[in-house]
Amino acid sequence: MIQHPCFSCESWEVFETELDLSVLAHSESILALSNGHIGLRANLEEGEPHGLPGTYLNSFYETRPLPYAEGGYGYPEAGQAAVNVTNGKIIRLLVDDEPFDVRYGELRSHRRVLDLRAGLLRREVEWSSPAGQAVRLSSVRLVSFVHRAVAAILYEVEPLDQAARLVVQSELVANEPLPAAVEGDPRTGVGVGSALCSEDFSKDEQRVVLVHRTEASRLLMAAGMDHVVDGPAGTETTTGAGEDLGRVTVATELQPGERLRLVKFLSYGWSSQRSLPSVRDQVEAALASARRSGWDGLVDAQREYLDAFWDRADVKIEGDTELQQAVRFALFHTVQAGARAEQRAIPAKGLTGSGYDGHCFWDTETFVLPVLTYTAPHAARDALRWRHATLDLARARAQVLGLEGAAFPWRTIRGEECSGYWPAGTAAFHINADIADAVIRYRSATRDEDFERDFGLELLVETARMWHSLGHHDAHGRFRIDGVTGPDEYSAIADNNVYTNLMAERNLRGAADAAERHPDRAHELGVDVEEAAAWRDAAQAMLIPYDEALGVHEQAEEFTEHAVWDFARTAPEQYPLMLHFPYFDLYRKQVVKQADLVLALFLRGDAFTPAEKARNFAYYEALTVRDSSLSAFVQAVIAAEVGHIELAHDYFAEAALMDLGDIHRNTKDGIHLASLAGAWIAAVAGFGGLRDHDGALSFTPRLPSRLTRLTFRVCFDGRRLEVEVSHRQARYTMLEGEPLEVTHHGDVVTVAADRPVSRPIPEPPTLEDPKQPHGRAPTRRRPPQ
Amino acid sequence: MIQHPCFSCESWEVFETELDLSVLAHSESILALSNGHIGLRANLEEGEPHGLPGTYLNSFYETRPLPYAEGGYGYPEAGQAAVNVTNGKIIRLLVDDEPFDVRYGELRSHRRVLDLRAGLLRREVEWSSPAGQAVRLSSVRLVSFVHRAVAAILYEVEPLDQAARLVVQSELVANEPLPAAVEGDPRTGVGVGSALCSEDFSKDEQRVVLVHRTEASRLLMAAGMDHVVDGPAGTETTTGAGEDLGRVTVATELQPGERLRLVKFLSYGWSSQRSLPSVRDQVEAALASARRSGWDGLVDAQREYLDAFWDRADVKIEGDTELQQAVRFALFHTVQAGARAEQRAIPAKGLTGSGYDGHCFWDTETFVLPVLTYTAPHAARDALRWRHATLDLARARAQVLGLEGAAFPWRTIRGEECSGYWPAGTAAFHINADIADAVIRYRSATRDEDFERDFGLELLVETARMWHSLGHHDAHGRFRIDGVTGPDEYSAIADNNVYTNLMAERNLRGAADAAERHPDRAHELGVDVEEAAAWRDAAQAMLIPYDEALGVHEQAEEFTEHAVWDFARTAPEQYPLMLHFPYFDLYRKQVVKQADLVLALFLRGDAFTPAEKARNFAYYEALTVRDSSLSAFVQAVIAAEVGHIELAHDYFAEAALMDLGDIHRNTKDGIHLASLAGAWIAAVAGFGGLRDHDGALSFTPRLPSRLTRLTFRVCFDGRRLEVEVSHRQARYTMLEGEPLEVTHHGDVVTVAADRPVSRPIPEPPTLEDPKQPHGRAPTRRRPPQ
Repeated sequence: MIQHPCFSCESWEVFETELDLSVLAHSESILALSNGHIGLRANLEEGEPHGLPGTYLNSFYETRPLPYAEGGYGYPEAGQAAVNVTNGKIIRLLVDDEPFDVRYGELRSHRRVLDLRAGLLRREVEWSSPAGQAVRLSSVRLVSFVHRAVAAILYEVEPLDQAARLVVQSELVANEPLPAAVEGDPRTGVGVGSALCSEDFSKDEQRVVLVHRTEASRLLMAAGMDHVVDGPAGTETTTGAGEDLGRVTVATELQPGERLRLVKFLSYGWSSQRSLPSVRDQVEAALASARRSGWDGLVDAQREYLDAFWDRADVKIEGDTELQQAVRFALFHTVQAGARAEQRAIPAKGLTGSGYDGHCFWDTETFVLPVLTYTAPHAARDALRWRHATLDLARARAQVLGLEGAAFPWRTIRGEECSGYWPAGTAAFHINADIADAVIRYRSATRDEDFERDFGLELLVETARMWHSLGHHDAHGRFRIDGVTGPDEYSAIADNNVYTNLMAERNLRGAADAAERHPDRAHELGVDVEEAAAWRDAAQAMLIPYDEALGVHEQAEEFTEHAVWDFARTAPEQYPLMLHFPYFDLYRKQVVKQADLVLALFLRGDAFTPAEKARNFAYYEALTVRDSSLSAFVQAVIAAEVGHIELAHDYFAEAALMDLGDIHRNTKDGIHLASLAGAWIAAVAGFGGLRDHDGALSFTPRLPSRLTRLTFRVCFDGRRLEVEVSHRQARYTMLEGEPLEVTHHGDVVTVAADRPVSRPIPEPPTLEDPKQPHGRAPTRRRPPQ
Repeated sequence: MIQHPCFSCESWEVFETELDLSVLAHSESILALSNGHIGLRANLEEGEPHGLPGTYLNSFYETRPLPYAEGGYGYPEAGQAAVNVTNGKIIRLLVDDEPFDVRYGELRSHRRVLDLRAGLLRREVEWSSPAGQAVRLSSVRLVSFVHRAVAAILYEVEPLDQAARLVVQSELVANEPLPAAVEGDPRTGVGVGSALCSEDFSKDEQRVVLVHRTEASRLLMAAGMDHVVDGPAGTETTTGAGEDLGRVTVATELQPGERLRLVKFLSYGWSSQRSLPSVRDQVEAALASARRSGWDGLVDAQREYLDAFWDRADVKIEGDTELQQAVRFALFHTVQAGARAEQRAIPAKGLTGSGYDGHCFWDTETFVLPVLTYTAPHAARDALRWRHATLDLARARAQVLGLEGAAFPWRTIRGEECSGYWPAGTAAFHINADIADAVIRYRSATRDEDFERDFGLELLVETARMWHSLGHHDAHGRFRIDGVTGPDEYSAIADNNVYTNLMAERNLRGAADAAERHPDRAHELGVDVEEAAAWRDAAQAMLIPYDEALGVHEQAEEFTEHAVWDFARTAPEQYPLMLHFPYFDLYRKQVVKQADLVLALFLRGDAFTPAEKARNFAYYEALTVRDSSLSAFVQAVIAAEVGHIELAHDYFAEAALMDLGDIHRNTKDGIHLASLAGAWIAAVAGFGGLRDHDGALSFTPRLPSRLTRLTFRVCFDGRRLEVEVSHRQARYTMLEGEPLEVTHHGDVVTVAADRPVSRPIPEPPTLEDPKQPHGRAPTRRRPPQ
């Protein structure tokens, strides 16, 4: 687990202190800015060199045909891919007629800082042109959390040593050429090529607006820029606009000590329904508003927004500086992805890259929403409202599949199923229970009964209907769910996956419970007493396979009968296995890509005894290769619970450093949002031991040896609770709100605003270290013995 | 089960007595001619109208990329598709400047006859042009069994009533336009479009040769034609040749009673290696040879070849005229497909259409080769030598899949895996045991030890190695084969499919036995005592799942736990199910597309008790929908064995009439070779009760009420045995060869050349009729009660 030396470690900042072009695409993802609506990769202002140019608008996509060598009934015919939209980040610089390009001349210094409290990306450069003219250049970039449609760049340049003629070209560029996609890695997106057709362009003073439409999906988007230029007398500004290019050119001559200052306001808007004038005017209006706020106004508002977020969400870690930084970085990207998504999907990469084509998976509900539920509950609600908005599509999909209720897509942008490989797509029905689980958690944590009545109940009812029609009672009365795929993508199409069945059980019960709470709305949805009773019956009879001989749960029926993968003969370079072995072989053997049964131990911890958890964890630990980024933090949580607290520290670090350390070597395509959210989960549910079964909060805090203190906060039912954990004790403080009963290692404690409660941490059990597959142990974080 | 009224029923001929354009593509398949090397669909000579133009050369294919919405390691990247090659069937006619086209003017009479003894397709037409000029026209067409590269057409035309000016254009046409493929039916081929690039053309007198190369697969082909024209004085002939067109034009004027007679000799050749001059000259030489034989010589040789075939192979049925015709029709297509394939693949459609893109599947070894083994053993040997010739490709495929030995492709033309859907392709490993089974059967039936030593042993060894590496011993020592797909395509990726495991068991034992018989050759192949012992151990320990509660074998583990398909709610128009329901749902329920466990009851009948067979048959009969043409005849065989002899008759008819009756409504894409071969299997293994376990022949003959007599012959170890079955007795006659011990209903009888043996047929058991799924019972053949 090595962070790239380019990034130095500061608890509130991520520094890049030199420019290594071989990891440029990685930096562009790490330092990307987003507010959940607009995403800007950290491409250099001058456009080149670049790793992967990227400017994204949430849910703005192009469609493409999904091809099949052999088709089949119900296969989705159209895919969706996020579009790299009009690039407004471009600010080119000519120094005495020589273009500023770090690959030429001499880059005397380079420094970029992602400021996690300010929500700014700062860049400072000293460069000397091939002809020897030196300049100092700085930029500060933000994507506003407050002005949802706005981004802005403060760009400053000054000559060093001697006077210089400077030209700055600030641009909007549509349909910029993209590097060719890498073949053979399904995690990289397929992309859509140039997809924007010009519909309109206009200019006025230093303002340009370009309007484009996607060719196939027929979505309309507008991008606008406006400028405030501050230079010495004689500075000239001209503006041009064309179909795919808007340009404001500033020409000046500066003496040493003089500076050219340019504030570039950017705004973006899109719509599938509204007219061109409407979308164009929206962008113009956002520019006007941003200009009125001014650069300082935008910066101040950004800080204010983030101060409030950190006050709710910050996780403090003492004893591991690198992880302190990593967990804040993780939370920052989580809030960037979710803060202003506002009833749009939250994709697996946020808006930081084109990986997975910009699709949203179950990751969002299962891993991102718990974090948002406890730190920014409005964002969790909005994400679930997006799911609710796609219910008609999910109902139509269920019908195609011969099922009742709703079947949500495995991967999508807009709501249609975009998975072209059904054994690991359509068959992964657990996503429906994952959505239900997020609904249940959000409602428990917020008591937002309006949400449950207006949106949550329908999600629960339609998914419960799906499960009831998907499963059947066998001859012994047990409720079976056959032929589905669980979270582990190295297995597929198995019977009675424990995770799926337990989550379906919660879904069925949760729907019945919610229908009882909202009888009128339930009646409107056609739920009667018989139907709710049938859900409870199915839940009650749910089959949970267990291997008596081994004393562990089978991930799915027959799983423990399969041959164990030959880990000893698998070379380190053969990971991830799916790039080196066929699915057919992975599926038929005991090898686990990502926590599946172990995830059930976490999310359905109420369904296992402590002894079962310990045996199951040890068994699956030996089979789990973590070829997915959705695994380490889940293993951290259960490792902590069953008593392997040092191992939990290792896994916590792996999750938190997933992107800073580029552990899966594909952060270039975008950050791994679920793993970053998972860093919070590992800290809070792992070391803090937070569980929320049945609507109550419980904690079993315990720290690994190297950490001296962990402090975190959770929002719960209008309250804000702080938990501070040291080796000897945990202290619970109600920062705001009514008193609350929680449990601490099984003991009930009442925390009230004026009465912090401290409780001692019991001694951990002594256990033998579990074994990972050969060569797959995580990097150790524990101090030298 | 309705035969189309166009076809009348004669025992040695298939008549078409009117021309119904709506079933033209069906007729073109039914009346197609082939010798296993060249295939000509029964397109009208004048080229139009047509259903699907088709001229095929065995194994002459074009490659195309196989696309995937989501790729994966080891997915085949290139597909192969049979090419519609240069059409030499075209003979256009102008009558007083009006083109002969049955859609215009008046078709006074039309008659085509496929003569199964002569191997000829005859056509007789009287037509009157829009201007009222009437002509009588006849053609006779053959694809020579003796001259492998040659086809020929005798074309005669005469005016009726009054003199007429006639022009005949005899052509070679490359890259003729094809109708667009039907979307959404995986059984139709995808095709390759125009794929032939002209390399050379030449003409000389009435001879034209066109040479083309495929664009991607780089195969070279030549087509040639030569003519003998016989007309009245003043008949003029001209010849032209171009890149994609060769044409011999005959212009004449005929008085009533005069006739223009044209013999067109066609020859075809292709190569992946030889040079253009070589391939061109081969075609010219074949034309010279055909011309020397002359029309009558070709016709005589054809009859002689077929007389010999029918003498070995004919099946006589008394009591059901339609089935007598059907079984001869079936045998005719079987010999057409296999007779001169000569170490090339025998595709699922023979050379009669572009269905399944001209691919060869397991059908060949499992269903076609048993027929050839007992009626034309040289053809069975050649087909197995083709498999042997592809061993290097199969070894390479095994390596990609992480397996030892060889893994043969699920579908292919040349030997490379062309299946783009691995759950029903690569995972269907049973094909390897099916090949081994055909090797074992061929060797048992012929005692061809040279073949076994030189080819068979290596096939057995490499497939045994594959099985040994595919399976594993579980904690109880049982040998498991997990995650594979059996014959039933409505299930996939299951553990311990009974058919697969039993066939693998035979494969493993067969390899060990053959290695013992040929120790030197086995040594060369690296087989030592330990390896052979490991094969026997795995075979001995093979896990065969059995459901104790139901008293039946599970098709695969867990199968009998799955929900039973809701047949009552499935409408007749929703069959075949795979066009109306997703695979995900089919796979997870108890619904059987085609005999799977029931096929095991047949091919591995030695592994089941009679009581098990009866119970298993009844259980699976209620689940089997016969959406595949590979099912009815297998059900016929086991129905007959367990005592449902009338049901066997029904299924026999369904298999035998598969194409004449167009039961699956896709005979337009080509005949269903396995089902036609299956008609022989249903007669001989069903009513005759032939079994060949462990190299001995046994019979349990029994006739359904409507049939009065069944006579069939089998070649066995240099002998020719005739079996004649009536209701009361069976008579065994050794037509040629040494005495042989066979069993008749369990009693050993010795049959010698001069001593036919008759034995009585025991009374059948009285059983309740098994139930088929709702609406899926076969059409009844039994006489009215």
